[in-house]
Amino acid sequence: MSKLAVVAFGGNALLRSGQKGTYEEQIANVSNTCESLYSLIKQGYNLVIGHGNGPQVGNVMLQHEGGKEKYNIPSMPMDFCVAETQGSIAHLIEMGFRNMFEKNGINKNIVTLVTQVEVSKDDPMFQNPTKPVGPYYTKEQADSFARETGAVYKEDPKGNGWRKVVPSPKPIAINNVDIVKQLSENGTVVVTVGGGGIPIVRENNTVRGVEAVIDKDLASALTAIQIGADEFYILTDVPKVYINFRKPGEKALDVITVAEAKEYLAAGHFAEGSMAPKIRAGIMFVENGGKECVITEAGQLGNAACGTRIVK
Amino acid sequence: MSKLAVVAFGGNALLRSGQKGTYEEQIANVSNTCESLYSLIKQGYNLVIGHGNGPQVGNVMLQHEGGKEKYNIPSMPMDFCVAETQGSIAHLIEMGFRNMFEKNGINKNIVTLVTQVEVSKDDPMFQNPTKPVGPYYTKEQADSFARETGAVYKEDPKGNGWRKVVPSPKPIAINNVDIVKQLSENGTVVVTVGGGGIPIVRENNTVRGVEAVIDKDLASALTAIQIGADEFYILTDVPKVYINFRKPGEKALDVITVAEAKEYLAAGHFAEGSMAPKIRAGIMFVENGGKECVITEAGQLGNAACGTRIVK
Repeated sequence: MSKLAVVAFGGNALLRSGQKGTYEEQIANVSNTCESLYSLIKQGYNLVIGHGNGPQVGNVMLQHEGGKEKYNIPSMPMDFCVAETQGSIAHLIEMGFRNMFEKNGINKNIVTLVTQVEVSKDDPMFQNPTKPVGPYYTKEQADSFARETGAVYKEDPKGNGWRKVVPSPKPIAINNVDIVKQLSENGTVVVTVGGGGIPIVRENNTVRGVEAVIDKDLASALTAIQIGADEFYILTDVPKVYINFRKPGEKALDVITVAEAKEYLAAGHFAEGSMAPKIRAGIMFVENGGKECVITEAGQLGNAACGTRIVK
Repeated sequence: MSKLAVVAFGGNALLRSGQKGTYEEQIANVSNTCESLYSLIKQGYNLVIGHGNGPQVGNVMLQHEGGKEKYNIPSMPMDFCVAETQGSIAHLIEMGFRNMFEKNGINKNIVTLVTQVEVSKDDPMFQNPTKPVGPYYTKEQADSFARETGAVYKEDPKGNGWRKVVPSPKPIAINNVDIVKQLSENGTVVVTVGGGGIPIVRENNTVRGVEAVIDKDLASALTAIQIGADEFYILTDVPKVYINFRKPGEKALDVITVAEAKEYLAAGHFAEGSMAPKIRAGIMFVENGGKECVITEAGQLGNAACGTRIVK
């Protein structure tokens, strides 16, 4: 039987920082990423792909704002924006995979599910929005938007201005994860939980979208657990995880246990909003039955000893 | 065994003309549409949903334009825009269905596939773009955009200005239609071919997106044929199809044969861009093995003799 792996990659695998994000740039980036994933296909893995949408959803928010100002088109909340990016990113990923399959003579298919992910309306993060999204504003603009819309704005620690912050609640259920399992076990590559999933809550027997973003590594980890994946790959822009990153005593990690990962995390070795959530997602996967989580960059996937492995 | 029906509805079932298209308006509209579909669920149908995206993709194009002007974010071609609307509309439809199921105690699930639809690069429509999309411009603006981008602009026959026109090629293959069949036969409601599908062409063993829009009724008809649907419902804003519509001798049609439908079509009874493509999609379905195509408005679905039926 084939092994099953979930691979999560960042939105910046498609829209790199420093690029304008033209259609052609995004097509070229996704094509490279898909080429790297060929090595997992060659090793016989069935694949489920989770992906981020940071740069993309930022662009969508700006486009909504431009559309509102220029054409009076109502701006949409985060759940709607995330849903838009699930469609567009899926289209690019599917083209990348289909062309990679064709080029390498692989007889496989790919399918994307638009994926709502349930969070709890009582998640404490709703009282403490921390995830910055969208454009930077002056303090005056931010204050004015906050009064108008009730949204929360916080100053960027790097001094770039003020940004809207939204809650980042924990994913508690992945809609249609049974279909993800069934399709991927039949050999179809399945794209799901794009941008961490479209956030919904259940209340009084109804579901509704909420103004939030779900961490894509946590949503991918939950997916990996629920479909019984053997391995969970988190792709990022460094070949391995480091302790004392960019400081004296910097050291790349090859294999670490969950206990060690927790220790390093508690000691502050991993940056919030960057490596820390990936380590937490890896721990969550291994603590819930997963064999190993590999954190690495896409280009390393061919190497047997690639990345940092979190094991039991 | 359950009967299988494909239901196609227009993008204006979600974003009605005259509305601004706020999130709340769209949620209310989709909720009404889903309530209407409950009568088909009660009758024991398994359902596949195709939907349009006219007003939505128009808004996306305006948002891209606003985002470009105000924030210098690259505008994206039609395939990307259609993909965005597949994600956002699916999210609204899924919420509508989940809430309708819950309210009526129905134990059913819904899933949406992001759906690319293949067209032929040699389709003659690529030489003759006819489908107007996006905002109206002055002649000067349209001329200037045409010079910049190579796109084609035509004057609106109603005198509203100049609009971009794109080709509307015939759908020749629905990606993942076998998965649509399999999931819907298991009782899951499947949303697919949103906006007619994301248009792609195959050339030199690669696939790529193309600047085009595919008629959603034709794409839904092709889906219905390929999954062996028993019936094909096309929802619109009139209860029945008429001959001599809004003229002397106006007559609502109850049941017509394919031969009669072709005759009426040839005699010019059905407006292009409105009823004519629906009639053509109905004919295509019945000529390729479908039992009947019903054209009606959503609110009529509970009535046994609703709509106009096209039969062999």
